[in-house]
Amino acid sequence: MERTYETQAGCPVAATLEVIGDRWTILILRDLLLGKSGKFKDLLESLQGISPNLLAERLKRLEREGIVRRSFYSDHPPRAEYVFTDKGQELGSVVRAIARWGYSYRLADEERERASRRLPWLDPAKPEPA
Amino acid sequence: MERTYETQAGCPVAATLEVIGDRWTILILRDLLLGKSGKFKDLLESLQGISPNLLAERLKRLEREGIVRRSFYSDHPPRAEYVFTDKGQELGSVVRAIARWGYSYRLADEERERASRRLPWLDPAKPEPA
Repeated sequence: MERTYETQAGCPVAATLEVIGDRWTILILRDLLLGKSGKFKDLLESLQGISPNLLAERLKRLEREGIVRRSFYSDHPPRAEYVFTDKGQELGSVVRAIARWGYSYRLADEERERASRRLPWLDPAKPEPA
Repeated sequence: MERTYETQAGCPVAATLEVIGDRWTILILRDLLLGKSGKFKDLLESLQGISPNLLAERLKRLEREGIVRRSFYSDHPPRAEYVFTDKGQELGSVVRAIARWGYSYRLADEERERASRRLPWLDPAKPEPA
């Protein structure tokens, strides 16, 4: 990703945004955090609207940064899915904070009900999962 | 901001990213969260690399979404600075989570020391501010 703000050197916010500062990347992290399939074709389907090339590029970047790794579930033929590393898992706090704010301020009532049935921790009154 | 993922309807993560899903916006939130000046010219200087037009557009969007408001500190001539609304203030948890991850995984040792002297809560061993 191009660096548009060299003058932000030393800023931990800017430093994180260099790696996850685009929306598709955060939606990829969301899927992995929710335990959805990390297979390329499943991610492509979940993130409808992303192109295969863009998804491949984003996953490569996340892998290069040590946020995801490939886990092979078949050797013949070789087939892998993307899973979090520990470093990636710790981005869960970012995704959850984003989700909780969206839950409180951006969802319609019926969307909010549906979402909190699936993910009780979205409700700010409930504790965040560990 | 264009909506590139209509199929994400009802997702609280995507819903938040529609409003704050670009890097400059998050850096604006960072400055306000840290209590830096919310005057246009000061934001422009802090976010070196952003154009005045882009900064104005981002601030207008944040104002339209009820995340910041203008607070007039002079009537003659009229002069305002941008400050958080309550809804905006609650995005602090997102910015802090981003900052804490960057602190742990993206800063060089000397950058980390400098940052945690200014902002002790960056250290994951310390509690997050209320």
